[in-house]
Amino acid sequence: MTIHPFDSIKDFELRSAARLVKKSYSDTDVHFVQIDRLDPPKDAMLKYLEAEKLLLPLPRISRVAYCYYYTKNGSVFNKALVNVSEGHVITKTVLPKGVVGPILPEDILEIEEYSLKHPRVVAEIEKLILPPGYEVVSEPWIYGTDDNNENRLLSQCYMYLRAKTSFDSNHYSIPLTFSPVFETISKTFVRMDYLPTGYDGSPTQTLPWKEVEPVEYHPDLLHEVNARIPKPLIVEQPEGPGFAISKSNEVEWQGWSFVVATNVREGFAIYDISFKGRSIAYRLSLSEMTVPYGDPRPPFHRKQAFDLGDAGFGTNANRLELGCDCLGVIKYLDTLRTNGEGEPILIPNSVCMHEQDNGILYKHVNYRTGNPVVARRREFVVQTIATVGNYEYILNIIFDQVGEICIQVRATGILSTMPIEENNVVNFGTNVAKTALASYHQHLLSFRIDTAIDGPKNTVVYDDVYPMEENTALNPFNVGFYTQRTILEKAGSVEQSPFTNRSYKIINENVINPVTKAPVGYKIEMPARQMLLGTKNSFNAKRAHFATKQLWVTKYSDNQLYAAGEFTNQSKEDTGLAKWVTNSLAENVRNNDVVVWPTLGFTHVPRAEDFPVMPVEIHEIKIVPSGFFEKNPALDLPQADQKQNKSVLMVENDKSSSNVCCKTVL
Amino acid sequence: MTIHPFDSIKDFELRSAARLVKKSYSDTDVHFVQIDRLDPPKDAMLKYLEAEKLLLPLPRISRVAYCYYYTKNGSVFNKALVNVSEGHVITKTVLPKGVVGPILPEDILEIEEYSLKHPRVVAEIEKLILPPGYEVVSEPWIYGTDDNNENRLLSQCYMYLRAKTSFDSNHYSIPLTFSPVFETISKTFVRMDYLPTGYDGSPTQTLPWKEVEPVEYHPDLLHEVNARIPKPLIVEQPEGPGFAISKSNEVEWQGWSFVVATNVREGFAIYDISFKGRSIAYRLSLSEMTVPYGDPRPPFHRKQAFDLGDAGFGTNANRLELGCDCLGVIKYLDTLRTNGEGEPILIPNSVCMHEQDNGILYKHVNYRTGNPVVARRREFVVQTIATVGNYEYILNIIFDQVGEICIQVRATGILSTMPIEENNVVNFGTNVAKTALASYHQHLLSFRIDTAIDGPKNTVVYDDVYPMEENTALNPFNVGFYTQRTILEKAGSVEQSPFTNRSYKIINENVINPVTKAPVGYKIEMPARQMLLGTKNSFNAKRAHFATKQLWVTKYSDNQLYAAGEFTNQSKEDTGLAKWVTNSLAENVRNNDVVVWPTLGFTHVPRAEDFPVMPVEIHEIKIVPSGFFEKNPALDLPQADQKQNKSVLMVENDKSSSNVCCKTVL
Repeated sequence: MTIHPFDSIKDFELRSAARLVKKSYSDTDVHFVQIDRLDPPKDAMLKYLEAEKLLLPLPRISRVAYCYYYTKNGSVFNKALVNVSEGHVITKTVLPKGVVGPILPEDILEIEEYSLKHPRVVAEIEKLILPPGYEVVSEPWIYGTDDNNENRLLSQCYMYLRAKTSFDSNHYSIPLTFSPVFETISKTFVRMDYLPTGYDGSPTQTLPWKEVEPVEYHPDLLHEVNARIPKPLIVEQPEGPGFAISKSNEVEWQGWSFVVATNVREGFAIYDISFKGRSIAYRLSLSEMTVPYGDPRPPFHRKQAFDLGDAGFGTNANRLELGCDCLGVIKYLDTLRTNGEGEPILIPNSVCMHEQDNGILYKHVNYRTGNPVVARRREFVVQTIATVGNYEYILNIIFDQVGEICIQVRATGILSTMPIEENNVVNFGTNVAKTALASYHQHLLSFRIDTAIDGPKNTVVYDDVYPMEENTALNPFNVGFYTQRTILEKAGSVEQSPFTNRSYKIINENVINPVTKAPVGYKIEMPARQMLLGTKNSFNAKRAHFATKQLWVTKYSDNQLYAAGEFTNQSKEDTGLAKWVTNSLAENVRNNDVVVWPTLGFTHVPRAEDFPVMPVEIHEIKIVPSGFFEKNPALDLPQADQKQNKSVLMVENDKSSSNVCCKTVL
Repeated sequence: MTIHPFDSIKDFELRSAARLVKKSYSDTDVHFVQIDRLDPPKDAMLKYLEAEKLLLPLPRISRVAYCYYYTKNGSVFNKALVNVSEGHVITKTVLPKGVVGPILPEDILEIEEYSLKHPRVVAEIEKLILPPGYEVVSEPWIYGTDDNNENRLLSQCYMYLRAKTSFDSNHYSIPLTFSPVFETISKTFVRMDYLPTGYDGSPTQTLPWKEVEPVEYHPDLLHEVNARIPKPLIVEQPEGPGFAISKSNEVEWQGWSFVVATNVREGFAIYDISFKGRSIAYRLSLSEMTVPYGDPRPPFHRKQAFDLGDAGFGTNANRLELGCDCLGVIKYLDTLRTNGEGEPILIPNSVCMHEQDNGILYKHVNYRTGNPVVARRREFVVQTIATVGNYEYILNIIFDQVGEICIQVRATGILSTMPIEENNVVNFGTNVAKTALASYHQHLLSFRIDTAIDGPKNTVVYDDVYPMEENTALNPFNVGFYTQRTILEKAGSVEQSPFTNRSYKIINENVINPVTKAPVGYKIEMPARQMLLGTKNSFNAKRAHFATKQLWVTKYSDNQLYAAGEFTNQSKEDTGLAKWVTNSLAENVRNNDVVVWPTLGFTHVPRAEDFPVMPVEIHEIKIVPSGFFEKNPALDLPQADQKQNKSVLMVENDKSSSNVCCKTVL
């Protein structure tokens, strides 16, 4: 069996890596938390891709797996690199005290169960004097750093009440006021935190619970469900999908070519992206996300999740379903992750791919002849959805027919709630239920785009638009404006500047567009946004320095994949972008192998409407050709055509609006 | 026949208005340029709507038409108001010298034809010594103001070359260097302008033309067309549309209720918008748009179109077609406009309405039970497309199932080009063909939202998010942030502030949300944008003061519909928002009948890819419930369901990617 270097880790590779690591320890105390393949070294891979294109013999690139695991009852955290092509361990490293790994879903479930039985917790529950029909739910949380001397991997369990009507009753609507802390792997009880429920941080004593109704989201528990039933809208593709996929998940669609590979940390990465035979990017992925909360009261200040580094977007990927998560003809991919024992767990259908229509792509009507030209915009979507505890993130990478890539994030799921005294109101959170507060928080996602605009050597620039000087010979009527270009010579970040229309571009200075007479390029479009609000001295900012700027640029280096560094869980500092672009080390990035890191940030001030389950909030980054082509690259499309699209004219009857008209004619 | 006060003007009403106006003049020299119905007075209309709801006798509201027309061979511009219910002229006004009206498509075509035959133009064409196979095209342009003493209605004709291969050959790709100016109605020759083609404003002599190839966009003239053929994607609605429409175009869909009425100036307006029985807005429409160009060189400095006031979005609406402009089951509306003689011209299918799927609306997976809940996002779209000369604007008002209204603008069509010397490059435009420059320009659209959030009395506020003071008792870890609300007491504008996450809200202080304990409201979401770049002393800014700010608030007043004032063509100043919010007159808008005017602006630095026909650039304003409901209002939807959605799994064969896999299985 040939394995392509971009292929996701195979079942036997994961088993082999785990077995080789385990074999190297005399005792059996090895607890895995993550195993996946490393990205192939880029230099070697570029040669491989070139050979592939020229149908030459392919160079051999060993498959290497990395393994994160604990030994000594969770007290020692280790990393091993295993050459699974040749079957040997390359390196085994004990990581420094305080560096801890991502958490497995099973480990969270274990803490969850254990915490509910712990005598200290049971004692608190007894104080609630619960009426029949309610039970306590424990929700272990990532323990955001607040102490440079804390070296244990910890879980903070937030406690809630669930109506016994269903295991899907919405416990988030009834938060409780005590919160035990445990060591995650050894399950050692650390401390009981008592939560504040007023404006200040004073902890609350556990008192008998005053009954409140849960606010349910599950359709089985709702009275109003099916009150509005939309009529069927079916996407039919009678000739099948317009895309082709090879065994190595190389997708070909409407001039695009790229490889999609799932992985446990990022969900998936897209490699070797080209459009109409010209290269655009070597690799594109979500790199990291941080979700800091603005509730200042201990212990809520510790709520700062790194959903990729702490948990894993692939590890927590949904199993997508036909007719629910996407319409039309669907191709699914799977994700393979490890369990604690080093056995592979398959997440089927973790990624779906399909086509969609998105309105008009271009239109013009010549008013002299009355002749319209109109093409519709077809899109190709690569989608994954991760459930990280309470929240869902839908990540869509959308390709269109004019060379554009849209990174679309849809935030949904359930708000993480804290207890609040009835009738209390605070200015750092929104009351979403009688005793539930949804604190303000931010989502800051870093995407990593290893561009290759017409080749590996690219330059990042930004263009500003300024009004011209007034009352000059050139500008006598004071209407003129012009662009001014700034070239990034060194690795670093770029400030936002919406009021000069600042536009980030990745150009190739070695290729001149014969029409514009300027270097070919792509632009990165994203709205101006508030960045991380935790101040410079907060752990939030130290750990997620990447989230303080909207755009970063680095010189490519193998193993620089994750914006906040390799290990984010309880990290004390950002060991990613923060380190890679420090002035003393800043590298030349002009006309070089550059990587661009846009931060898609949004401050979430919850609405009542976001509870009990949140309608999607949609945020996008667009990667758009800008003088890359000599003209609109979509002139090779056919015109929109009723013969193909088969729209239907609504036929009305002569009744009032209360009689819905259902007949249709072609 | 009963006519609802919101109904678009009827054929017989338009005829009657024109006849009554004509009758009042002894001579026959009446040249109409616009006739439409006035909006009913709001006070009376609110009583009418109330009576309608209570099934009480309906108060009588006269239908009033306004007529804009020229007399005395185009030298006098008049406005009449006609009561078409009762058949009499209410007022006839001669407008002051210098106030001119919008332009009819026929008048543009007349000038176009006339200009080509004028001896001064013929003489210039002769100097070109054109080879066979090319002919000259004239494109009359709105004559943007540059002189306070100019009182004539003028047209600046930009001249181009078209290959004789087809009337749809793209003349915009071959601009010529002379430009005659005419009086628009009388067609008097005014002046020949010679255009600059270098960086400075020096005019160019007309020389023999050096042949360049046109850059074609029409499929009949393209070699590459149909090189990429997407496979069919059909939107099927086997049970018909999910919306109902009454004879008065009252739409009911998924809890929404509103009336859509076409008109010649705005394209359409939407009235009496409510969701789930609660009022949201009395009226919503595009109010004005200005398109100033950044090319400072005379005469290009005069390119500043007001596409609504100067031309009319409805007057220039496309006749939409099944299978081209929207998919699924479609309901069309028509627009009625006048011609110069006061006869109605029908534009059929000027507005289309239909449903579409837009991915996931919400999702959550309970990781404990593995049970997902997922609903899909169905949308209802009201679409119109206007062709204003070279450009197309697609306006979509999109309603969703959670009470949100999205205003979506898609800019497409053909860039307005100026001649440029071959190999010359300027910093205020992009070369898009060998001798064609697409100058930088801006699009600034003002939308008018007459809100009625839970009733007519609303308040506009904005919320900013700030980090909390550091190292306080409340904020010991420096992670806290909070919102601060500012209330608008007086009519005026609001500054943009993306870095404090400024959020514009319209609240009803008289209705408290029992869950959040704050007034119910909606927010207006739009990205921070560069506003009008023409400096304060430019006519661009004087005429489009509205375009200098992103959000305006006024107290409701009948007849304050258009952001830049009633007459924008060659206007010397903004007689709309600029006048209505001046400090001396600024009215109390708190807890009052307010109107909100967001400006959707984008600076367009053209790309080579935007030529010869521009892929849509999409810009949006979202009107989103924010503490309006007590919880997610979409919990009454059914779950996404394969039985209804009938998605299909892609089936692969075992071939390489060059063999597209077409089979599908359910």
